[in-house]
Amino acid sequence: MRVLVVGASGTIGRAVVAELRERHEVVTAGRSSGDVRVDITDKASIRAAFEAAGPIDAVVSAAGKVKFAPFAEMEDADYRIGLADKLMGQVNLVLIGREFIADGGSFTLTTGVLDSDPIRMGSSASMVNGAVNAFVVAAAIEMPRGLRINVVSPGVITEAMPDYAPFFRGFEPVPAARAALAYAKSVEGAQTGQVYRVL
Amino acid sequence: MRVLVVGASGTIGRAVVAELRERHEVVTAGRSSGDVRVDITDKASIRAAFEAAGPIDAVVSAAGKVKFAPFAEMEDADYRIGLADKLMGQVNLVLIGREFIADGGSFTLTTGVLDSDPIRMGSSASMVNGAVNAFVVAAAIEMPRGLRINVVSPGVITEAMPDYAPFFRGFEPVPAARAALAYAKSVEGAQTGQVYRVL
Repeated sequence: MRVLVVGASGTIGRAVVAELRERHEVVTAGRSSGDVRVDITDKASIRAAFEAAGPIDAVVSAAGKVKFAPFAEMEDADYRIGLADKLMGQVNLVLIGREFIADGGSFTLTTGVLDSDPIRMGSSASMVNGAVNAFVVAAAIEMPRGLRINVVSPGVITEAMPDYAPFFRGFEPVPAARAALAYAKSVEGAQTGQVYRVL
Repeated sequence: MRVLVVGASGTIGRAVVAELRERHEVVTAGRSSGDVRVDITDKASIRAAFEAAGPIDAVVSAAGKVKFAPFAEMEDADYRIGLADKLMGQVNLVLIGREFIADGGSFTLTTGVLDSDPIRMGSSASMVNGAVNAFVVAAAIEMPRGLRINVVSPGVITEAMPDYAPFFRGFEPVPAARAALAYAKSVEGAQTGQVYRVL
């Protein structure tokens, strides 16, 4: 398969690329690095990336940011950052990507444990993760042409703990390579509408 | 208690008002009817509604719309309707309401079964419901002043079946009065961070 990995230079993205490259042709994409460049908050950029990427059988997104801040300081505009980026950025990869992806292809998005196991300062991350998970479950039943869609929801990634540990005390970290297995299951398996929780 | 019910004239709102009026002073709010008028997509309108409502011990939201359309026709702008209305409308009731509500008060929002049991044309509703549920779980752990927050996620409401039945075949409808009990549990109980599924 030819797999487009968006967010390929991130902690999860690198592990996904390493896992998939064993068996597939991987096209890497990122905001400032990769075979193609893409800003997922910009629909024109997404379209240009698919046009540049050529024929694609699977799309993996390990991209998207949200604002982390204490709930007391979070206002409407702060939540909208995550809605425009990690939520609609990933959703627009699907909405635009469905025009380009091969019959029977798959989309695999990324959320995380905070949708159901919240931390301080994480209310936007929780919101966005819950939104993406539910979108995937719903979109799966209406996908045309045998297209599939799943989402991987990993715990905090071991390799990110140097930065994130103070916010995730007591969370058992997940090695990126272990999270990457769920992406391989989504891309190479036949399931759809799944939230793969890697905890 | 003095309870502000937003969306008081809707199918669920009317049942919530009937249930809570037995024991509490209810201030009704709606876009075009009620003791106070409010457009939840407009932060200034929300603020004006709280100023007009006077002292409030609990806020119930049974408001918020999303676009229903086949996934094949849903574009970025269609999802943003629900994000601005049922998601951020309800979230802004909390963000602004936290300035006005009494110590130990509660917020009770509304989602629905589609977050995990999707139907055709419902991908935006699923997305928004998942977002609100996860936001509530996360916001609960950071609420100041003993404030609580829960969400009621009912199945399709019996009284709405004349309009909705073709979209919800096989779903067992829930009488509005039964859904209303969950709002009373949220307002009058002591739990927080709960998703009350009434199925």
